[in-house]
Amino acid sequence: MEELKKYLESQKDRSLEELIRFLKIPSISADSNYKESVREACNWLSGRLEEIGIQTVKIYETDGHPIVYGELIIDKSYPTVLFYGHYDVQPPDPMDLWDSEPFAPVVKKTKLHPEGAVFARGACDDKGQLYMHVKAVEALIENNSLQCNVKFLYEGEEEVGSENLDQFCMEYKDMLSSDVILISDTSILSNDTPTITTGLRGLSYVEVEVTGPNKDLHSGVYGGAVANPINILSSMIASLQDENGKVTIPGFYDDVEIVSDKERELMNEAPFDLEQYKADLGIKEVKGEKGFTTFERTSIRPTLDVNGIWGGYTGEGAKTVLPSKAFAKISMRLVPFQDPDKITALFKNHFEKIAPEYVSVKVKPHHGGRPAVTPIDSEEYAAAEAAMEASFGKKPIPMRSGGSIPIVAMFKEVLETDSILMGFGLDSDSIHSPNEHYGLFNFFTGIETIAGFLNNLSKQ
Amino acid sequence: MEELKKYLESQKDRSLEELIRFLKIPSISADSNYKESVREACNWLSGRLEEIGIQTVKIYETDGHPIVYGELIIDKSYPTVLFYGHYDVQPPDPMDLWDSEPFAPVVKKTKLHPEGAVFARGACDDKGQLYMHVKAVEALIENNSLQCNVKFLYEGEEEVGSENLDQFCMEYKDMLSSDVILISDTSILSNDTPTITTGLRGLSYVEVEVTGPNKDLHSGVYGGAVANPINILSSMIASLQDENGKVTIPGFYDDVEIVSDKERELMNEAPFDLEQYKADLGIKEVKGEKGFTTFERTSIRPTLDVNGIWGGYTGEGAKTVLPSKAFAKISMRLVPFQDPDKITALFKNHFEKIAPEYVSVKVKPHHGGRPAVTPIDSEEYAAAEAAMEASFGKKPIPMRSGGSIPIVAMFKEVLETDSILMGFGLDSDSIHSPNEHYGLFNFFTGIETIAGFLNNLSKQ
Repeated sequence: MEELKKYLESQKDRSLEELIRFLKIPSISADSNYKESVREACNWLSGRLEEIGIQTVKIYETDGHPIVYGELIIDKSYPTVLFYGHYDVQPPDPMDLWDSEPFAPVVKKTKLHPEGAVFARGACDDKGQLYMHVKAVEALIENNSLQCNVKFLYEGEEEVGSENLDQFCMEYKDMLSSDVILISDTSILSNDTPTITTGLRGLSYVEVEVTGPNKDLHSGVYGGAVANPINILSSMIASLQDENGKVTIPGFYDDVEIVSDKERELMNEAPFDLEQYKADLGIKEVKGEKGFTTFERTSIRPTLDVNGIWGGYTGEGAKTVLPSKAFAKISMRLVPFQDPDKITALFKNHFEKIAPEYVSVKVKPHHGGRPAVTPIDSEEYAAAEAAMEASFGKKPIPMRSGGSIPIVAMFKEVLETDSILMGFGLDSDSIHSPNEHYGLFNFFTGIETIAGFLNNLSKQ
Repeated sequence: MEELKKYLESQKDRSLEELIRFLKIPSISADSNYKESVREACNWLSGRLEEIGIQTVKIYETDGHPIVYGELIIDKSYPTVLFYGHYDVQPPDPMDLWDSEPFAPVVKKTKLHPEGAVFARGACDDKGQLYMHVKAVEALIENNSLQCNVKFLYEGEEEVGSENLDQFCMEYKDMLSSDVILISDTSILSNDTPTITTGLRGLSYVEVEVTGPNKDLHSGVYGGAVANPINILSSMIASLQDENGKVTIPGFYDDVEIVSDKERELMNEAPFDLEQYKADLGIKEVKGEKGFTTFERTSIRPTLDVNGIWGGYTGEGAKTVLPSKAFAKISMRLVPFQDPDKITALFKNHFEKIAPEYVSVKVKPHHGGRPAVTPIDSEEYAAAEAAMEASFGKKPIPMRSGGSIPIVAMFKEVLETDSILMGFGLDSDSIHSPNEHYGLFNFFTGIETIAGFLNNLSKQ
């Protein structure tokens, strides 16, 4: 391992240069204007896999963006790891809040990243993280010490709901078989406190449209007599949560896992500084479901957030319009054992039911995803834990995360394989936000840890 | 008058051609990208006034868009009429709801305009209406029968709050002196039911900004623990009106004129078909302040409407963002004797007060305007009434309108002159909306009526 560490040290500049090249490609899967850029990212990644010595690399077309798959089978008696990641990125909006261009990566030092961090859309989510897999495997190959079979499954639709991945997994189940799936798309608590994610929230995402009059009206001539769809939508949104922060949709909490007091106690022992948290976000108070801590609110409890709202005149100056329509994008984070399809249906029924007779509403489901928990008593978890302990000098804490990686539940169901969620980002890395970045310490330590994980696995 | 009518008949094609030329200029005052187009409209109008024989025509610069002023003094013993109008227009958004280009006028027949209507932004509000003044005066000049002094005051900032008009009126008070001000920027009840507007609502218009965290966050990582400014803004908006449709801002109704039961009774005798109204708007039910009719809700009662709302991700697809900020444009229509500055201050105080500690709010006032009532017992009103009776064959009904023309109150205060609000649009002409139009019947009848009004005045 010492030799490998030396090698990794010597490769740092090149690794960063390659990542920067990858980050320059605006592979925004949600925006059809960037379709070709998504493909470019896929091609680039496929090329890299070939270059490091992966035997079989192939791009699979889907109804959406392509999937790149690669495998290197050394010995069938060796353990097999399937790496999963996504090369697509979130849209960069709002553009005016970026300090540098989202697709022109720059390296800058920050308070939490004194060694520097690379700033770009996708730096942490997930290009920087998936690229650690590639560099770790490359290093082991170069040092003739790879003693695992490796498979790579990288998709371009994670940010739009992985719509074609289920089908792909069902179709290529045998090809994708492995002992463990390694996903690096989560965060650690801090660079001093390594963590492994052992639970993820699910997601139900809907878009709603509220229609009042059949055309935009003059608010002077009609105002006061005709229901304004923005006012109505606001009231409807307001009614979706009560004064205790509970979601009011009937049946919403029916299937929520009741976490034991013991587990909640343990969870709340993890280091957490609420004052620092508030200071980092620039807020005076946190807000959430009554009776739960911030940690619990973002991990073991479901939520409802409006992710976008629009209607009427939003340009410069003043326009006195009573608009015909108002829109919102609303998502609900789900916890075990909530089912996203059931929750979406409950939302739709409820939203249609509470719509007053002055308006008509449409609810359009976007993608959803099931919540997941991963085992912490497996050999693979032990291999990951030991690798992190070696590279961070501290044993990692198992933690539930608030985010969603819906494919974890799907992998378990379709491929019948458990995942290890070993990511290296920080919550403050601004993923899905302007100025997304990924620490160089995290990137390089991640590569080392993943190499260590493969080594540990092969020794078991 | 018979000769004049014959002349007007012969001029119809030319009048419409000129109006179409005027409507092609995208004089959108709210959007600084159209600054030069606003000036172009001003120059064109100024040229037309010169062409019809107005002695003195001059363009006055302001801090915003220019004012065009013209006067023709025939005899100081004659009555003097000051025409007011505005050559600027509302932004055309939402563009995708227009059936034709907003600045490429087309003439089409409609159910309510079987003789045809011209479709373009500004057709009714207010280019088509102010141009009736020009054509009426031109006709009287051509027929050597103008026996009034005429003054024209046309501004380019009505749609953005007439910000420089007060100052102009104060500075040029003597130049602008007249016996009556004629404004054509209102509507009649229907082409069968002529009306003269005798009251206008005032306006208070604010823009609000609600800030939660200091940057956009991932809704999975933070959702449930950090207040979402869109959810909070929705709740704040929802709380501004109660279940009876009353505005909840303390003091909001303090200065509202209490209209007598007798006047309310008369008001509700005007022909109005609620079922037709709902059918025209495509709504199942009207909604408004409890205890008042639709007529009353849009004339003698103040209101609150959200004119625009935005925040978070509003693009294609799904993005799971917990945004930093949410915004809304909110306007309140005011009635005598509410003061817009006072109401704006009440709104600001209230909105800041109800903001929960999780967020910070900013309230930015846009333009406001005072409500107004105009006398119906004057010689000038009688001249207008008689002119309408002659051209429509029916005596017009005095009516209060729901819209705002804040300069009416300002004219009364600064110029100490009453206005006559003789407009010829229909409420269904979609002003401030896509597919704005102005009936040819209304345009031509308006020209005839205004010429008749000047004739009647000179005979008094």
